[in-house]
Amino acid sequence: MLTQPSIKYHPAQIIDFPARTWPSKQLKAPPRWCSTDLRDGNQALANPMDHAKKMAFFKHLIECGFKEIEIAFPAASQTDFDFVRLLIEGDYIPGDVTIQVMTQSRVDLIERTIQSLVGAKKAIVHIYNATAPVFREVVFCQDKAATLELAVQGVKHIRQLCEQNPDTQWTLQYSPETFCFTEPDFALEVCEAVKKTWQPSQERPMILNLPTTVEVNTPNVFADQIEYFMTSFSSLEHITISVHPHNDRGTGVATAEMAILAGAQRVEGCLFGNGERTGNVDLVTLAMNLYSQGVHPNLNFSDIRRTVELVEECNELPVHPRHPYAGSLAFTAFSGSHQDAIKKGFAAQKSTSSTVWQIPYLPLDPKDIGCTYEEVIRVNSQSGKSGAAWLLQENHGLFLPRKLQIDFSKKVKNHTDQTGHEMPLADVWRLFRESYRLNPDDKGQMTLMDYRSHSSNGLQEIRATLRYQEKTWQLVGEGKGLLSAMLDALRKRFNWQINISDFHEHTLGQQTKSKAVSYVQIESDQVTPSFGVAIDEDSTKASLQALINACHPLYKEA
Amino acid sequence: MLTQPSIKYHPAQIIDFPARTWPSKQLKAPPRWCSTDLRDGNQALANPMDHAKKMAFFKHLIECGFKEIEIAFPAASQTDFDFVRLLIEGDYIPGDVTIQVMTQSRVDLIERTIQSLVGAKKAIVHIYNATAPVFREVVFCQDKAATLELAVQGVKHIRQLCEQNPDTQWTLQYSPETFCFTEPDFALEVCEAVKKTWQPSQERPMILNLPTTVEVNTPNVFADQIEYFMTSFSSLEHITISVHPHNDRGTGVATAEMAILAGAQRVEGCLFGNGERTGNVDLVTLAMNLYSQGVHPNLNFSDIRRTVELVEECNELPVHPRHPYAGSLAFTAFSGSHQDAIKKGFAAQKSTSSTVWQIPYLPLDPKDIGCTYEEVIRVNSQSGKSGAAWLLQENHGLFLPRKLQIDFSKKVKNHTDQTGHEMPLADVWRLFRESYRLNPDDKGQMTLMDYRSHSSNGLQEIRATLRYQEKTWQLVGEGKGLLSAMLDALRKRFNWQINISDFHEHTLGQQTKSKAVSYVQIESDQVTPSFGVAIDEDSTKASLQALINACHPLYKEA
Repeated sequence: MLTQPSIKYHPAQIIDFPARTWPSKQLKAPPRWCSTDLRDGNQALANPMDHAKKMAFFKHLIECGFKEIEIAFPAASQTDFDFVRLLIEGDYIPGDVTIQVMTQSRVDLIERTIQSLVGAKKAIVHIYNATAPVFREVVFCQDKAATLELAVQGVKHIRQLCEQNPDTQWTLQYSPETFCFTEPDFALEVCEAVKKTWQPSQERPMILNLPTTVEVNTPNVFADQIEYFMTSFSSLEHITISVHPHNDRGTGVATAEMAILAGAQRVEGCLFGNGERTGNVDLVTLAMNLYSQGVHPNLNFSDIRRTVELVEECNELPVHPRHPYAGSLAFTAFSGSHQDAIKKGFAAQKSTSSTVWQIPYLPLDPKDIGCTYEEVIRVNSQSGKSGAAWLLQENHGLFLPRKLQIDFSKKVKNHTDQTGHEMPLADVWRLFRESYRLNPDDKGQMTLMDYRSHSSNGLQEIRATLRYQEKTWQLVGEGKGLLSAMLDALRKRFNWQINISDFHEHTLGQQTKSKAVSYVQIESDQVTPSFGVAIDEDSTKASLQALINACHPLYKEA
Repeated sequence: MLTQPSIKYHPAQIIDFPARTWPSKQLKAPPRWCSTDLRDGNQALANPMDHAKKMAFFKHLIECGFKEIEIAFPAASQTDFDFVRLLIEGDYIPGDVTIQVMTQSRVDLIERTIQSLVGAKKAIVHIYNATAPVFREVVFCQDKAATLELAVQGVKHIRQLCEQNPDTQWTLQYSPETFCFTEPDFALEVCEAVKKTWQPSQERPMILNLPTTVEVNTPNVFADQIEYFMTSFSSLEHITISVHPHNDRGTGVATAEMAILAGAQRVEGCLFGNGERTGNVDLVTLAMNLYSQGVHPNLNFSDIRRTVELVEECNELPVHPRHPYAGSLAFTAFSGSHQDAIKKGFAAQKSTSSTVWQIPYLPLDPKDIGCTYEEVIRVNSQSGKSGAAWLLQENHGLFLPRKLQIDFSKKVKNHTDQTGHEMPLADVWRLFRESYRLNPDDKGQMTLMDYRSHSSNGLQEIRATLRYQEKTWQLVGEGKGLLSAMLDALRKRFNWQINISDFHEHTLGQQTKSKAVSYVQIESDQVTPSFGVAIDEDSTKASLQALINACHPLYKEA
């Protein structure tokens, strides 16, 4: 990197446009969407799609609700031409879907393009030429007049050919390339000339597509350019203003959104932001951004994992784990405080009649796009008490009492600090069972084999049989309830100085509702306070066994 | 997805702020940067970094030029606490670098936090509490007064402890969480109270950090919130306004940039946008966005591939191929027209004395971040004539004449259409040599073994020996030059009706400047026009051999 980059790089031009109104507006309706995955996206792949992949992609786009799909640059390659023919001749295009093809402004290319579309019910012919100074001067050695003339001649030719093929409903799309660094007034001049040539009408609609083929400025500048263009244009009747943002500065999504605020009515892009270099704007993020603000995008990504899978297979490119909405980590909270807030959010949501989604850290309900809550909370060494507790709650129906949450989170942190790795659910569950002796098969557990009780004088007497490592004990104790009677029995038999400092019990979830889970904490001068947990169909037995389990630091020495 | 998402999702609040001035501003200076890779980034990893990785990351951040680095949440984990001690006791912190640690507003946590910093020369203590309604109501069940009091008590406690440890230069950082959906006036109220408690001065600076912990709005709304906050605040003397954008809507970069336009002076984020869920804002993109507009970011990514490698190893997460600036495809053009423009751009750049970078489709010179031009142009079935020609030019020093470019691009397209795959350089080179017989070892080549010439009457006479597949021929011919004499000889000997329709010759690049390359095209009624190419230290021999090579469709039958 240069010490003085200003020698080599100049800031992109901005326009002076204090009359702008877009910053006070909000996104309230979706734009028209055009997927260019099969064209702009496809040309940017190391291995462009074959017909089978293109067809699978095309069908999926239709399932997602796309009504305008740019499918090819038919004059540029035989593969592209053949794909257009395949869709038309195979009758693969639904009545409400319009295909779009791209061409440069050259007679032979235009003729081949129109040829490819014969038999289509509806089609958008997308013609572009380079209008920006760097292209005019460096690439084409053309002045403004020649550049304008190139656009006009191309459109004239398309119009003639369209008129010769009246069975297709034609739309013209024109792109001044690269709009975002073309002089604003020249872009206007060329687009006015194109309009005059095409003469848009109800039967002959027109799209002016204003691309940031290379992103060179902050999105607010593009919004100014769009609003300036639209307010300066003679009349936009029968004309749709479309944008085609790229992502070189990582701001493609914002550029599209601000262009819509500024008046743009249509957006071209690709699923998950595929496209040359850093990609076209990501239409999935744009759509879900609208959805999560209560605006239906007219696109449907109800099964986002399937969309990811298809696109990854066709593009041979991954969707990043942190990709908005679609990445495998997009909804995952590892941090303790985040997990705690999410857990409380879900609890609050359950206890209210409000339909409004208000879960901290989750701008969208993952279920709306076919994901589960399993991926929401994952446990690593940075997680606090809520993470592991959440996993046990969601997957095993356990609602850990607060003290137990704290106790267990320390054990989890010890474990993750030692391994340095994320702790998957199976490991959390194993650690929990081992720590609190929730493991009937474990030989390290002192097991309540049976118990009898009777009451007299308001006291419960208990007689219990315990087994631990081949040994068997008979215990007798009494108390105000069975649990305190058991406590008494343990004290007497083993000479343990213990008290119960915490006790909770609840039934397990619906599927196993005949079972109960008990959590017991004991205090003792002999050991640090410890918890025991037990599950049983007999809720009394669960509580007694939980008490015995809580004593495991003591009975190890029994 | 719901048919009516408005039932479940409400649009985020915006503020009415027509007085905004930020949309007319430009990015002219870099903000202060704070990397939170080791804290906010780290907590979001399935496998958080161990000390070795954290140390390697820390050192790299310093190499990149970071002066403020959030390194831990010391009160939350022993690992974090120990890392702070390691850096301080091992004297790993350069004099111009300030470490930052985070804490919640709780007495025990604050004490442990300050404890971790004993011996540090400079430190930022970053305290936060939840101020947004959803947190107050759902997570903490606190009203506004209690929320404000929590912030004030925490800051008061920090101030006391700082005053007891005067050997460290302390800065307070306070974050109202989540600023972007806290009521603007309540955020102001809490921050004013914090200021009053800390009493910022020259010796006791303060940072107000305004996070979009969850992105819920378009970036222009955040810019309005920042400008409103800053213009409404009592006095910002000794106070730095910092932002901490996340990326849930895919607009973190734009949010940071517009916040800077609106007045923010500092940005917290992570390299390549690591962080909880969809990540923190990507500081590399922000820095390079400035750089490519001529503003030095005060960060240095001169060897971006090394930075990518280190971050990928530490985070165990990939940098996406289309990531701005850093992705493997960020500068790659597959499309024919893009390749053509880039090629012309480089040619124009060479012929001018201007230092200004003006290459179409490349907003940045890849060399500035340690990349090569090799990744710029790659060839697939969507590439036009320029792509393959560029590869041969850059890697083999060949400047293909235009007609040959077109001829060769057809062969390339045939090849890529058939394989469906990208064509790497080695394959392009092999196809070129086979197609134009540039292969001395090829038995399919008719080889000029030797030649003699003399001139008389202004005519050159040539006598040449050719060999092809074990056969040898003696040829005699004459013409105005040696090439036309050879043409004459071939016509006579083999009865070929041929003419030379194109001829170009140039020396090869500097390293092999004694060699010349010749390109000859012949026309013939017998076959379609064909090219031959030859390289030789004797430029005459190169041209004669190129002519013979151009005849290969004919001599196959000889």
